[in-house]
Amino acid sequence: MNGAESLVHSLLRNDVDLCFTNPGTSEMHFVAALDTIPGMRSVLALHEGTATGAADGYWRLARRPACTLLHLGPGLANGLSNLHNARKAGSGVVNIVGEHATSHLELDAPLASDIEGIARPVSHWVETSGHPAMVGSDAARAVQAARTEPGQIATLILPGDTAWPAGGQVAGKLEPPAPVVAEEHLVDQAANLLRSEDSLLLLGGEALTERNLRRAGEIAASTGCALLSEWSNARTERGAGRVWVGRVPYPIDIAIETLSRFRRIVLLGARAPIGFFAYPDKPAKLTRPDCEILTLADPAADLAGTLETLHSALCSGTKQTARLAERRFAGIPVGALTPESIGDVLCHSIPENAIVVDESITSGRVFGTATAGAAPHTWLNNCGGSIGYSLPAAVGAALACPDRKILTLTGDGSGMYNPQAIWTMAREGLDVTMLIFANRSYEILRGELTNVGVANPGPRAIDMLSLDRPALDWVALARSMGAEACRVESNVALVRALEAGFSTKGPVLIEAVL
Amino acid sequence: MNGAESLVHSLLRNDVDLCFTNPGTSEMHFVAALDTIPGMRSVLALHEGTATGAADGYWRLARRPACTLLHLGPGLANGLSNLHNARKAGSGVVNIVGEHATSHLELDAPLASDIEGIARPVSHWVETSGHPAMVGSDAARAVQAARTEPGQIATLILPGDTAWPAGGQVAGKLEPPAPVVAEEHLVDQAANLLRSEDSLLLLGGEALTERNLRRAGEIAASTGCALLSEWSNARTERGAGRVWVGRVPYPIDIAIETLSRFRRIVLLGARAPIGFFAYPDKPAKLTRPDCEILTLADPAADLAGTLETLHSALCSGTKQTARLAERRFAGIPVGALTPESIGDVLCHSIPENAIVVDESITSGRVFGTATAGAAPHTWLNNCGGSIGYSLPAAVGAALACPDRKILTLTGDGSGMYNPQAIWTMAREGLDVTMLIFANRSYEILRGELTNVGVANPGPRAIDMLSLDRPALDWVALARSMGAEACRVESNVALVRALEAGFSTKGPVLIEAVL
Repeated sequence: MNGAESLVHSLLRNDVDLCFTNPGTSEMHFVAALDTIPGMRSVLALHEGTATGAADGYWRLARRPACTLLHLGPGLANGLSNLHNARKAGSGVVNIVGEHATSHLELDAPLASDIEGIARPVSHWVETSGHPAMVGSDAARAVQAARTEPGQIATLILPGDTAWPAGGQVAGKLEPPAPVVAEEHLVDQAANLLRSEDSLLLLGGEALTERNLRRAGEIAASTGCALLSEWSNARTERGAGRVWVGRVPYPIDIAIETLSRFRRIVLLGARAPIGFFAYPDKPAKLTRPDCEILTLADPAADLAGTLETLHSALCSGTKQTARLAERRFAGIPVGALTPESIGDVLCHSIPENAIVVDESITSGRVFGTATAGAAPHTWLNNCGGSIGYSLPAAVGAALACPDRKILTLTGDGSGMYNPQAIWTMAREGLDVTMLIFANRSYEILRGELTNVGVANPGPRAIDMLSLDRPALDWVALARSMGAEACRVESNVALVRALEAGFSTKGPVLIEAVL
Repeated sequence: MNGAESLVHSLLRNDVDLCFTNPGTSEMHFVAALDTIPGMRSVLALHEGTATGAADGYWRLARRPACTLLHLGPGLANGLSNLHNARKAGSGVVNIVGEHATSHLELDAPLASDIEGIARPVSHWVETSGHPAMVGSDAARAVQAARTEPGQIATLILPGDTAWPAGGQVAGKLEPPAPVVAEEHLVDQAANLLRSEDSLLLLGGEALTERNLRRAGEIAASTGCALLSEWSNARTERGAGRVWVGRVPYPIDIAIETLSRFRRIVLLGARAPIGFFAYPDKPAKLTRPDCEILTLADPAADLAGTLETLHSALCSGTKQTARLAERRFAGIPVGALTPESIGDVLCHSIPENAIVVDESITSGRVFGTATAGAAPHTWLNNCGGSIGYSLPAAVGAALACPDRKILTLTGDGSGMYNPQAIWTMAREGLDVTMLIFANRSYEILRGELTNVGVANPGPRAIDMLSLDRPALDWVALARSMGAEACRVESNVALVRALEAGFSTKGPVLIEAVL
């Protein structure tokens, strides 16, 4: 058994059986090993941004890591920004990166680069294997690192001469450390804060599962505290029959106003609210200066266990019922497509048990409340702010949940970052309906110009935020990569296009012209 | 004057007047400064791979740096692989990367990352400005670093609070250190080697200008030494009327055979030939074990001056005439498109003074010899091996040379890495004719499977190298981004399409189905 074969066997023993890849010469032995060893599904990407974003999306649904197989430093570099997003989302990803044979490194070949240096800023764990006999155990430790709560980025670099010689050894399964429940004195403090007036339980990470939300909802009913989630959440279970929690708004002035009524905040899997950016003359911390903030449990903790303990402290005795969102049957709006009308369309059209991958940026600011009463569904946000996550993440979500419908909500600026994901969707026959909001602008930046104090942007500044010269033809773009596509300019057409998309096998793209 | 304005003024004073950008909130002050200060042309890219690749292509033709304006760590990360290529090509690039305000960094906002860590593996020079008053001089030093021979990657990170406050100061022009001519004793050694039998003068970098090639050709005529260039060259002047030099071949066995006849090699702007990859049981150094190799001048040296000195030592007295390539009028081949027939078509069709950006990978291995007698033209190779450089580099080449025709030769696998460059070409009305070789495969990897010792790849391995499921529709893809496009399946059609492309204002894509 060579090193490459021991890698594949060891990954499989550690429950990693899906590989997103764009391989090169230095990874050919691993590609060959995929042939001879059954059990590892390999999915080809035309650009590594798709591979790493797909691994992020896969983790969020499957709650176990996929691996990527990337070609040297540049292949890793191409996947870096979606690894940044995955890191911020707390997604576990195992990157396997090929490297030149050790003897070749000193020669500084064209593709030679500092792979560990490229990996480190986005990785919790980086190692380079030194010997074929170590590849298996290194892989097991990489998976263990990736599975460490709340999910980590592990990058294993494999020089060619660890892949091709004999001497590979298969490693067994390694378990990550178990997450821990918050200490009793913290739970007592949190309970006291939540029983007081003007208190907020701020949720993040795994606190947003259906069961955990139910517990949080009962705590809210029992104490009168408010519930919110972070501005961006890796995964939220929501819609009719679930406890609805709003998000801390993105626009800084609205966020500050929303948070101004809370004097006590308990953080459960969430971090204290801060501005997405710093702005001149605006605070970075969005909470009141006199607000008491308690970190009951960080995202790496046992959030379910902590919620149970908190629930026992607050809700034993009186059985409180959580307030659940009711199904709202929004009528189909008439007239032109607007963010508001699309919110109503989504409330009408999101299929039960769908997975919504949201990168709608400005177009989607109203979608949260508009879809609170949609059929029950799962919602993913971009947690790292690097645009281009939604189409790749949809690939991973679809592979994790082949029986569920995937809907991506994507701005045109964001969608153009990793359009190559459409080809992988077509290749794998994934049931993804892509809704592109063609406002032909980096609309968010027009607002940000004002926020940072630029009062009167001139034509050249505006030009840098405009995508209308030329306008992108999303229908042609999707078809060029094998997906069905249509363009809609009315709400009725959008409803029909969504229905068609959800009932079509394979990917469908809808360009909504705003 | 705020820090952002001092940046733009200082860049202009240092002859940087072109900016490839995809900006975000943290760069809005710089975008605003572009409005109020005339002289800086800003070119928008839909993905940073286009921005950095364009800066690479611009340097190669203009021989002065453009700057990029990138959004935080993820924006830089997206441009990293083409910066890797630029670094290996010896191209000077100034990256301006926005950063959160210093006060915001400790809060670990969603987009926060270790920008210096991301920059370092591809940069020769990395600094973070600490104060608005320093931004101007930091920018001047960044340009100075980028202009240091043979061209370097300089990355300047600008926290938001260096951009928006007043106190910016404009910096004057800084000159980089002048490159130096090789020492006399080295020139003497080189002259002796080249006068001996079985000797090779191996050229790279700036040794491949028309004038320097003429000098090298005269040395070859005088001494009988052979001339070759490196496998990949940032820029070569070639075609009829120029001294033709072959390249060290890419396929390792052919490279070893080619080099086996040389017992003495003088390196002038080139490095000693090594394998692109290490392969089991093949040597990494491609020259004979007994070969005497002398580095007369590395790529950072004064190659023109060194060549003059060497020329004086070898050619004074007898006036030798360099052998120049003659115009070859290849007939238009009949029959199906093959790499060989396309080589003849290119020899026929390359317009005089055109710039060819070559990323043709396997399809193009015969193009070098086939086009030796084409009309005189400039040829750019990918020097870093990270695919996806050609369409972005064409953007930069076209902006550097608005009066010249640009032809890109691109594999379909490579082209799908940064197709967003097509949109920028359309937006800026650039005269780029793109020839895509649609073999629907990562064909190079099929050969590499054998090279690394994988004898019988199975269907899953082959599937990872295949792009035919689904086939990409390049015509639709180009049109979706505003370029004209056609598909050709014969040599006659290709000749016509190239003619049409070169006579059309703006970008044209030709999909050649192989």
